[in-house]
Amino acid sequence: MLELRLVQGSLLKKVLEAIKDLVNDANFDCSATGFSLQAMDSSHVALVALLLRSEGFEHYRCDRNMSMGMNLNNMSKMLKCAGNDDIITLKADDGSDTVTFMFESPTQDKIADFEMKLMDIDSEHLGIPEAEYHAIVRMPSAEFARICKDLSSIGDTVVISVTKEGVKFSTRGDIGTANIVCRQNTTVDKPEEATIIEMTEPVTLTFALRYMNSFTKATPLSNTVTISLSSELPVVVEYKIAEMGYIRFYLAPKIEEDDEEAKS
Amino acid sequence: MLELRLVQGSLLKKVLEAIKDLVNDANFDCSATGFSLQAMDSSHVALVALLLRSEGFEHYRCDRNMSMGMNLNNMSKMLKCAGNDDIITLKADDGSDTVTFMFESPTQDKIADFEMKLMDIDSEHLGIPEAEYHAIVRMPSAEFARICKDLSSIGDTVVISVTKEGVKFSTRGDIGTANIVCRQNTTVDKPEEATIIEMTEPVTLTFALRYMNSFTKATPLSNTVTISLSSELPVVVEYKIAEMGYIRFYLAPKIEEDDEEAKS
Amino acid sequence: MLELRLVQGSLLKKVLEAIKDLVNDANFDCSATGFSLQAMDSSHVALVALLLRSEGFEHYRCDRNMSMGMNLNNMSKMLKCAGNDDIITLKADDGSDTVTFMFESPTQDKIADFEMKLMDIDSEHLGIPEAEYHAIVRMPSAEFARICKDLSSIGDTVVISVTKEGVKFSTRGDIGTANIVCRQNTTVDKPEEATIIEMTEPVTLTFALRYMNSFTKATPLSNTVTISLSSELPVVVEYKIAEMGYIRFYLAPKIEEDDEEAKS
Repeated sequence: MLELRLVQGSLLKKVLEAIKDLVNDANFDCSATGFSLQAMDSSHVALVALLLRSEGFEHYRCDRNMSMGMNLNNMSKMLKCAGNDDIITLKADDGSDTVTFMFESPTQDKIADFEMKLMDIDSEHLGIPEAEYHAIVRMPSAEFARICKDLSSIGDTVVISVTKEGVKFSTRGDIGTANIVCRQNTTVDKPEEATIIEMTEPVTLTFALRYMNSFTKATPLSNTVTISLSSELPVVVEYKIAEMGYIRFYLAPKIEEDDEEAKS
Repeated sequence: MLELRLVQGSLLKKVLEAIKDLVNDANFDCSATGFSLQAMDSSHVALVALLLRSEGFEHYRCDRNMSMGMNLNNMSKMLKCAGNDDIITLKADDGSDTVTFMFESPTQDKIADFEMKLMDIDSEHLGIPEAEYHAIVRMPSAEFARICKDLSSIGDTVVISVTKEGVKFSTRGDIGTANIVCRQNTTVDKPEEATIIEMTEPVTLTFALRYMNSFTKATPLSNTVTISLSSELPVVVEYKIAEMGYIRFYLAPKIEEDDEEAKS
Repeated sequence: MLELRLVQGSLLKKVLEAIKDLVNDANFDCSATGFSLQAMDSSHVALVALLLRSEGFEHYRCDRNMSMGMNLNNMSKMLKCAGNDDIITLKADDGSDTVTFMFESPTQDKIADFEMKLMDIDSEHLGIPEAEYHAIVRMPSAEFARICKDLSSIGDTVVISVTKEGVKFSTRGDIGTANIVCRQNTTVDKPEEATIIEMTEPVTLTFALRYMNSFTKATPLSNTVTISLSSELPVVVEYKIAEMGYIRFYLAPKIEEDDEEAKS
């Protein structure tokens, strides 16, 4: 028997919006620790990892570990029917082939039950080793989203270069080139507006903008984003989910012969 | 000679938005009582009845009864040219084959005349008998619109079941099932937020969501909607138009062999 | 060497939005006087003339006259990457085949450089003689934009008639006719809300609404628009750019055999 009650139901709605374009079908794993998901995108290039810790739920009952295969598009359709202030409860009986989403309006006037068929999905859980990163950039998530969107109007890939002074995002396309530099900046009114760079050595890596733009769909989940970079490791783009966990996106850098040229 | 001056011109704009997708061409009937319309939708399944009482107009002159056939899409195009604060005057000479819409801006700086050709439309006026309904539900119109829209993302038909405790809207589709229950609730801050159920006996009826969604285009006309149900009578979905009249939609229930199954 | 620093960078963004749908490629001319452009629309029917005077820039360095051919669509793509509060600096080296747009965020945290290839564009600079106009109408730009948009839902051309009392905009189409009269009105709360008519003799001219609608893309640049009319001269539709200059659109009237008929 599984019963997870999330007072801030809009969080789950935002999580689905963040991953449903990247991943079609995925297993959600429930254990005493929490509600989690790990899945490759449909072209097997990017990896997404989600964790919502059990402590973040108002009520969390998970009698035994369960893996529930869901079509994320259908799940998103159902969650869109929840109001932004609704409490969402996720229920499943042991051995059942369905999951139920219950939405309660704050005034309890309106209660909805949505039942969805579960799917059998083959998936191997990848162990993601803890790694040391050469550079970790924390910046406002809206700023990062804006940069990825802007560069996409010029080119297809982004070169991210981190030095002590700042982080540079560059692209090049048919109509010209673009370089955007964000300086390290900690003297801000609100902590979430800071751009903070922790660096052991400079890094320069190239990524497909298509995926970066897809990751920024998680922007509504957090005011800040953390980008962890090391040469020859996948980048980690992480959005913290307040008091509950995180959503992390992993993407391998592009190895380009004309890499140097693209750095402008 | 016909001359109807409506200070709150935005009302007429909203009326057209509410019915133009349902009905292509219709006769507007003018008499001493008021300005009214009765029409079947283009697939002859739903009926719409509109009444704007003469007392609601600032000036109402209707020398003799007139029936004016109009293309609602064209009429809507013209009314969209009226500002939301404009005074709208509708004018027609006896025997004329045109109607004129005059729009006056509140400051009288700008005056517009739009002239439209009238059409000959065959239509029979149906007498709608006053009926006793088993259950009458009054609820916030935005809530009803949201429910119809949400259920449409899951299924094609809605089963409406009324009991003393509340009203249940259910659907079923390829991706799963949904049940939304709104409880009777009269302890609200504003009267228009109440959900009130008057019932002589429980009712369960099935309707096409496509039409229900179409009816909810009238939501901007009123904060509340009244749904009147009886077994084997068409449902009436009514939006009151403040101090002027109403717009009512009639839709016959679906008789489904698999009705029981669809009730969830 | 060219270096033009514009504190109110959003002005340049709005200028591009105003002309990019009308003109594909054009030469921007820089001289000690200012930054200007003159171009025919792609169908060679309308003419646009832009002037941003050098005094309006925070810093204006133009060592020698330069003509820079740009694709306006690509330039617009780059300027869209500037924030609305960004300072925009335009830079070009003598003899260079590229131009650089630099965007500085107000807090100086983020600095972007966009470099674009210049083009060779053949263009002849037309001398536009100063003319005496029979009627000059100044009115709120949003009002003029609304009128052009509204009339486009009815017909393809607009007849503009100016008398001492006001200006009338008329059209006619398959679904009917429309006349919108704006009265001379100087008793307004804010000067930009006035409709002022200076007239030596009445004028009635017909224009294609398609172009008028295109000109109204300049509406965000100014609260008012000035329309100068003379029989057998192109109309001038002018939007002033505060303390910097103007954008002017010229359009020849239509000579219609059935002109009289279209006047309603």
